[in-house]
Amino acid sequence: MNPLHIDLGERSYDIHIEGGCLKNAGEHIRDLCPKADKLFVVTDSNVGPLYYDPLKAALEQAGFALCVHVIPAGEESKNAALLSKLWEDMLEFGLTRTDAVVALGGGVVGDLAGFAAATVLRGVDFIQLPTTLLAQVDSSVGGKVAIDLRHGKNLAGAFHQPKFVLMDCCVLSTLSDKTFSDGMAEVIKYGCIADKSFFDRLAAQPSRSAIMDNIESVLYTCCDIKRQVVEEDELDTGRRMLLNFGHTIGHAYELAGNYTAWTHGQAVAAGMVAAAKLGVALGVTPADVPGQVEALCHAFGLPTAIPCSAADYAAAVGRDKKGTGADISVILLEEIGRAVVHKMPKARLVRLLNSFDKVP
Amino acid sequence: MNPLHIDLGERSYDIHIEGGCLKNAGEHIRDLCPKADKLFVVTDSNVGPLYYDPLKAALEQAGFALCVHVIPAGEESKNAALLSKLWEDMLEFGLTRTDAVVALGGGVVGDLAGFAAATVLRGVDFIQLPTTLLAQVDSSVGGKVAIDLRHGKNLAGAFHQPKFVLMDCCVLSTLSDKTFSDGMAEVIKYGCIADKSFFDRLAAQPSRSAIMDNIESVLYTCCDIKRQVVEEDELDTGRRMLLNFGHTIGHAYELAGNYTAWTHGQAVAAGMVAAAKLGVALGVTPADVPGQVEALCHAFGLPTAIPCSAADYAAAVGRDKKGTGADISVILLEEIGRAVVHKMPKARLVRLLNSFDKVP
Repeated sequence: MNPLHIDLGERSYDIHIEGGCLKNAGEHIRDLCPKADKLFVVTDSNVGPLYYDPLKAALEQAGFALCVHVIPAGEESKNAALLSKLWEDMLEFGLTRTDAVVALGGGVVGDLAGFAAATVLRGVDFIQLPTTLLAQVDSSVGGKVAIDLRHGKNLAGAFHQPKFVLMDCCVLSTLSDKTFSDGMAEVIKYGCIADKSFFDRLAAQPSRSAIMDNIESVLYTCCDIKRQVVEEDELDTGRRMLLNFGHTIGHAYELAGNYTAWTHGQAVAAGMVAAAKLGVALGVTPADVPGQVEALCHAFGLPTAIPCSAADYAAAVGRDKKGTGADISVILLEEIGRAVVHKMPKARLVRLLNSFDKVP
Repeated sequence: MNPLHIDLGERSYDIHIEGGCLKNAGEHIRDLCPKADKLFVVTDSNVGPLYYDPLKAALEQAGFALCVHVIPAGEESKNAALLSKLWEDMLEFGLTRTDAVVALGGGVVGDLAGFAAATVLRGVDFIQLPTTLLAQVDSSVGGKVAIDLRHGKNLAGAFHQPKFVLMDCCVLSTLSDKTFSDGMAEVIKYGCIADKSFFDRLAAQPSRSAIMDNIESVLYTCCDIKRQVVEEDELDTGRRMLLNFGHTIGHAYELAGNYTAWTHGQAVAAGMVAAAKLGVALGVTPADVPGQVEALCHAFGLPTAIPCSAADYAAAVGRDKKGTGADISVILLEEIGRAVVHKMPKARLVRLLNSFDKVP
């Protein structure tokens, strides 16, 4: 499959999607970072034991000096103390501006390593080797990197596009069903916001094995939709908001579950169903859409409703980065495959969401 | 005096230079950040007591809700823990993407607050109100923001251009002579690298009072030189290096003094003299230049030689962000008013610098 090219002027890059391509990482990095001598690799305690050794061999073969930093697996690692530790370790390793940082792992590894790469020496090259479905279809593409703060997720960060993204779909075979489903929420999202025929194909054979039979094409479709949105709005001031479908409400569910009861994908799935209902209530979304979204999420083992207090809705809506003053922009579906930005008072959003939960 | 316009496309901004202009800060911010409700002000324990009250009055008059964070004065405040504290306090204050961060102080305040502004919510507007000569002629212009790491200064940071810079030259009257001289090193630097007639004017009347008699014009000249360089090379990959004249060697002196014995300006002054001698040794700089640079620095109470071990030279050269592999780019003078980038082996640089110190 040809690489997918993200056109962002000087910050353009390619996404390579191919089974087994991790073993070619050394050649790719050598081509794209010809002046690099050193690579600082960040991975986590789940992914490192599985995939670091073959990667190490490939990178050393290409002549790079390596330093690896293994972070504890899990969202808790996206914190300021660990960011600071990465900075210090990068300098201790002797990283220079022409060297690069490599993220081998899921969204947590990519977000943390990417933020460190964006800021160490005011920015060095960054290479994404995403190993979860969620990271492959979403977080590794588009340049958003961040850590979490006490007040919520991704509240300190940067836009730092990777130098390239290498997606080895073979690594998805070691994901648990739960982690695979987690990524499926974002896959379904792309169908909802931008591609009805893709949504229909997912709905026709809603199983992990059917997805894996066409995984390169699925990844390509998702990344291509994200590409279009990111190319139009790299810095997330307009159209890129569409990618947030299900996310504002999903953040309320993550908060309600104290960021541990529900994964990001689970919260987004229930958030998409709620956003579809919201669209119906506001007269934007046809009445049959929530049921279709619900059925597809359900088929992939994702929750379609999550209990949430009015206080958690209000807190999540209040903290949303898309909010300014009393209003918030939510993403609604005009139909499956077409999303719009809908601005509304925060208070009304919270009231409506709360009312859904009261309906039996 | 008309504002100086820095042309960087979407990131363009104006520098206002005027005695007493701090009292107009509210109107300026209201004009430039029409959607902002809240301002998060960072200042330090020296500047806050002197200038925060009148600023507060001006900002409240313009209708802003304020939160002020006073950091301890001094370079030690440019650390990761304080950055993290600023992020948390900004969120606690309820800062949104359309609000802004204001830095009232010298380079430490501007660098730390600017880095927090560059990264909180992935970037909010940032306003510089520089209160030292050094910050006015150098650090507040050009968008470089950073914190220090264990391995050295400014090692984690970003490029985040301010929304505008307001320079009230009246505030310079409260600076100690030492702090004023500290800024003069950078003023002299601009003459050395880009403007012989400016250098000559400084040399004709080398006193604080003569500078203050023409302060608006001095600030304008310095910022205008920085403007040209930054417009050509915002991200510091080429010509912007010229601003580093005296700095690579200066970093060695700062290190030799454990970052406490010498101020940045003192180290840069001695670094410029050494860089001039280096240029002579390499056949780039005319033989009479070091004496001229030395005389002007001396007239403003700046040191023109600082003891430094070979180990400190080597450490500073090794860590320089301008270094890649075995080579380093140093800035030399072809004459007073014209600087060039000169690439040379790090080892040779250290050997030459060390040899100067051995000459009686």
